[in-house]
Amino acid sequence: MQFSTSFIPDIHFGAGSFSGLADAAAGFGGIKTAAVVIDGFLASTGVATALADALASKGIDVRVYSEFSGEPKLAHLQAATAVASGCDLVIGVGGGSALDIAKVAACCAASGEDPMVYALAANPLPKSPLKKIMVPTTAGTGSETSATNIFAGPEGKKLWIWGAETKADLVVLDPELTISLPAHLTAWCGMDAFIHAFEACTNRNAHKGAKLYAHEAMRLVAGSLETAVKAPGNLDARGKVLLGSCYAGIAIDNCGTAVAHNISHALAGLAPVHHGLATALGFEATLPWLVEADTADLQAAAKALGLADAAALPGFVSDLMDRCGFVRALPKAFDGFTAADLAAEMRAPENQPMRRSTVREISDADIDTFAEKIMSLPKSA
Amino acid sequence: MQFSTSFIPDIHFGAGSFSGLADAAAGFGGIKTAAVVIDGFLASTGVATALADALASKGIDVRVYSEFSGEPKLAHLQAATAVASGCDLVIGVGGGSALDIAKVAACCAASGEDPMVYALAANPLPKSPLKKIMVPTTAGTGSETSATNIFAGPEGKKLWIWGAETKADLVVLDPELTISLPAHLTAWCGMDAFIHAFEACTNRNAHKGAKLYAHEAMRLVAGSLETAVKAPGNLDARGKVLLGSCYAGIAIDNCGTAVAHNISHALAGLAPVHHGLATALGFEATLPWLVEADTADLQAAAKALGLADAAALPGFVSDLMDRCGFVRALPKAFDGFTAADLAAEMRAPENQPMRRSTVREISDADIDTFAEKIMSLPKSA
Repeated sequence: MQFSTSFIPDIHFGAGSFSGLADAAAGFGGIKTAAVVIDGFLASTGVATALADALASKGIDVRVYSEFSGEPKLAHLQAATAVASGCDLVIGVGGGSALDIAKVAACCAASGEDPMVYALAANPLPKSPLKKIMVPTTAGTGSETSATNIFAGPEGKKLWIWGAETKADLVVLDPELTISLPAHLTAWCGMDAFIHAFEACTNRNAHKGAKLYAHEAMRLVAGSLETAVKAPGNLDARGKVLLGSCYAGIAIDNCGTAVAHNISHALAGLAPVHHGLATALGFEATLPWLVEADTADLQAAAKALGLADAAALPGFVSDLMDRCGFVRALPKAFDGFTAADLAAEMRAPENQPMRRSTVREISDADIDTFAEKIMSLPKSA
Repeated sequence: MQFSTSFIPDIHFGAGSFSGLADAAAGFGGIKTAAVVIDGFLASTGVATALADALASKGIDVRVYSEFSGEPKLAHLQAATAVASGCDLVIGVGGGSALDIAKVAACCAASGEDPMVYALAANPLPKSPLKKIMVPTTAGTGSETSATNIFAGPEGKKLWIWGAETKADLVVLDPELTISLPAHLTAWCGMDAFIHAFEACTNRNAHKGAKLYAHEAMRLVAGSLETAVKAPGNLDARGKVLLGSCYAGIAIDNCGTAVAHNISHALAGLAPVHHGLATALGFEATLPWLVEADTADLQAAAKALGLADAAALPGFVSDLMDRCGFVRALPKAFDGFTAADLAAEMRAPENQPMRRSTVREISDADIDTFAEKIMSLPKSA
């Protein structure tokens, strides 16, 4: 047995931990100016004001960038880099997009290069990026503990910047910041986290070092997601899902994903769809097929969840999705597309790594079957 | 629930992983000269030669420091700092002493200050120490993942230098390097690791973030230590104990230790004794008393080990020590000391943090009872 795990940042966990962020920032030493990359709707709330005040009290000037929405685009990375230039620290507050933008800006501001210089690993990232503090306010992407950053390039094509240099120095996990997330998004993001953990610990790259985090992540999310969805103010449940999402981020940072993410990326190639919803639909559609592989890792995942064996996983997952109020439907925008369209996207070169990493070989016929299953779902508003 | 966990370095695990060290060193970028702090008996073996050759092949010059033995002394830290001055990287290879010396030298070489400047947190450590790679060759101290470094000051008094700045950037865990450790040292070091994990997840500072590592560490060590002792060449068992020791290091890095370490430090204050042996004797002598506290953390620790409840822990631990060939005896040098001498050391100011962190309050009468129990052990050669 051999494996490598990538470094894990300092983690401050718990309700109220956000209020300690300025102290932590000052603790880095030599921080004069911080760039805050924050979701637009949060920028106008007390969250942003409290952060700016706390940083000011430590003698740290603040510049804010919040002019982005949806998935990150190159223009967002460039604008955030411009704001971060000359800063000593970048703080990302928000969903995965805010964090990805903040992480890339901390590298590009340090080197003075355009983000495209680093896209698809074209050039090595700077060895000394700005310090980074990441504060996820959705519990799902795990971007706070991963080295992967996704954005749409100049022609709209999905690109990535990957490297340990983009990883956070400190992660602040404060469940109070997640309370305002609507129920359906809590469910979608939470299932995304669960699937990150599941795929990381059962795919071909799975190893003992990452399973520690993946199994704990699955237990945390599966044990608390229903409560977080139905009782939004339950900080204990919110905290457990948030911590689980963070651990799931560690798991995919080391071992990546599999077939459910092949499908969700393929769906996103056709029309706009929430990543968590798309991933959950892809997961549920393929899990009965996947567990037939009956590997030791699948058995271990089942055992980690308290199940008798891997064959019980599909029922467990569908029940969890039921309890979390999942509506199995695609957005209206998918009305004009066919199973053949989805199958073509699933076969596209950029989605092959997730096909190859899946522990069971995915034949072309399997792809057609999965695409048929997904595209036969109702198209809701 | 609130907690903080300190960053965890990159970890390369597995038989043969040592051979990838030079690649990893080159990967840091800009490394021209590396100081290697290595145990004397290893310095003259193929291990040191292979490392120097591999580093040279990457264009990295090597300076070696190995003139130390036993517990680190100030003079060792100073000499290692002199060797590391002007280097870009410090590599520690050996037991806890080699690693502690290497970690401190990487800080002092960066700042140009004497180690005493940082002793007992008198001054903040430099924010940009040299890069550090730690390679433990005993599985016990967990120094490779901790921020604590112990040494004897100018008057022989035990001092410490503590701080995240002393932590490794990369930990290489290669079980092949542990094979030559004699059986009794394998047992002593392994039990030290087990107790690190146990105390960290059951003391007053225990928290959810560290329990993840502590429970896994206990499972790994308890499950494989007997085999590692009895079949020294079993790389699977060696690897599991080594990984467990590393995870136990993470656990104490976050939550510290308790009564068993109060006793082992007190014993070391009287006469030379192996830290692992002293800690195991202190642990076995106090565990039946400790588990009477019957806390949720003690129950969780028992459950992690597959036991019905905390009351089963003392029997489990004594059986593990039996199977690992533990002789319950102190070195001959303890012949001249009494229970009162040990009790006085247990009450010494520097040992109070480990008394206070213990989940059950330790009365003065308890100390006398424990000291009596320990000092009535046979004094073997």
